[in-house]
Amino acid sequence: MSGSLTIVGLGPGAPELTTPAVSRALREATDLVGYETYLARVPMSGPEQQRHGSDNRVEIDRARHALTLAAEGRRVAVVSSGDPGVFAMAAAVFEAIEAGDARWRSLDIRVEPGVTAMLAAAAAAGAPLGSDFCAISLSDNLKSWATIERRLEAAARGDFVIALYNPASRARPHQLGAAFALLRKWKPADTVIVLAHAAGTPQCRLEVSSLAEGDTLAADMRTLVLVGSSRTRCVARADGSAWVYTPRSEEAVL
Amino acid sequence: MSGSLTIVGLGPGAPELTTPAVSRALREATDLVGYETYLARVPMSGPEQQRHGSDNRVEIDRARHALTLAAEGRRVAVVSSGDPGVFAMAAAVFEAIEAGDARWRSLDIRVEPGVTAMLAAAAAAGAPLGSDFCAISLSDNLKSWATIERRLEAAARGDFVIALYNPASRARPHQLGAAFALLRKWKPADTVIVLAHAAGTPQCRLEVSSLAEGDTLAADMRTLVLVGSSRTRCVARADGSAWVYTPRSEEAVL
Repeated sequence: MSGSLTIVGLGPGAPELTTPAVSRALREATDLVGYETYLARVPMSGPEQQRHGSDNRVEIDRARHALTLAAEGRRVAVVSSGDPGVFAMAAAVFEAIEAGDARWRSLDIRVEPGVTAMLAAAAAAGAPLGSDFCAISLSDNLKSWATIERRLEAAARGDFVIALYNPASRARPHQLGAAFALLRKWKPADTVIVLAHAAGTPQCRLEVSSLAEGDTLAADMRTLVLVGSSRTRCVARADGSAWVYTPRSEEAVL
Repeated sequence: MSGSLTIVGLGPGAPELTTPAVSRALREATDLVGYETYLARVPMSGPEQQRHGSDNRVEIDRARHALTLAAEGRRVAVVSSGDPGVFAMAAAVFEAIEAGDARWRSLDIRVEPGVTAMLAAAAAAGAPLGSDFCAISLSDNLKSWATIERRLEAAARGDFVIALYNPASRARPHQLGAAFALLRKWKPADTVIVLAHAAGTPQCRLEVSSLAEGDTLAADMRTLVLVGSSRTRCVARADGSAWVYTPRSEEAVL
């Protein structure tokens, strides 16, 4: 089959955080497939390029549509925010391939990585991911809340820094509070937390707080939450704000 | 203080994976500080730019040197591979600030994120990070092996996909095998593993295997190892190779 499909990650929002490899794949594509909000971030590249926008649901249908276009010989780019392999479209494409038309397995399929939200949030805060860490999506659309609880407990017992994706939405307003309540069973109340809103965009706003007081803060789908390990700490800046970082070492080295 | 310090991540190796924001910070810097091997990847930008290369040890001394230059009024870029906040230089800089000259706290300090090795490795393999995951460095230079064991066990109990950074070096040839042996206590022998060598560079080479057979494969400091969750699976491609992905959902959705 002559068609191709590239699953790209735009990064967190600022055009300066989109890799040149992704920009090239977008320029060369005959068809762009993705959530309307993400397609709106892609510069136009000539009148022939087709854009197939959709809402943010039913990722698997979008994946099948993109594969069908590629099987017709088109050069398709599937557009994700952040990194396409982290709570985004890449897994949906491979799910669709596994269950779909056998000919899709001979398509030229590539994944172009990007800067995922957790890295942009960490960069804005300092270096909170400086030691071992994990990433958990709090959305229970595709997994049970029991699985989320099991992973939060494991992450706490392992003393990982924890990045929480999809911490809240209109349909799920209470899950971040429930996650904090669970984590307080295992982690000290003064554990550093960071709520990063729209990190990696010009609207980036950070709130640094503690696990005890995190419930009072508002999160939405543009928020990435970082929960520190036992070693994560704040360093006061001259302007009154603070950097947050996790030392690389378990013990004080200085 | 008028100086500035930007800690940048070049990405995994290919110039096309360096963000424009990082390229700009490198062009605008009066001084570059970093491991020689990483500085060699940065294009020259005029005869005035100073380069301060070092070997890959004693990151904290390199951080102090960079801060001293910034405090003298220079525009300094500290150069990391991958993302500077993931097992790289950013945490070392904040450690140096916390323990160092109080005036360093008024410097203009920024972190510019990049594509970390785990994302490049995942993109080359398919979408193995499609569900919750964690990242663990197997180097015990800065933490005890007991802490690494504790985190591997927690990651296995939580059924995370696991990315292993720094899986082996000449001084530590046996740690990846020890990690696999530990993980086999908790995870099935047929758990999918991927060894990604030089992912995100033209020399990228993948080995897809199982936890039972992983010990026979060679890793070095350019290898990133991915260990699947209970749901991670392979999809055969028409050319005989396979994509590796982790479904977003806990249950079959197709």
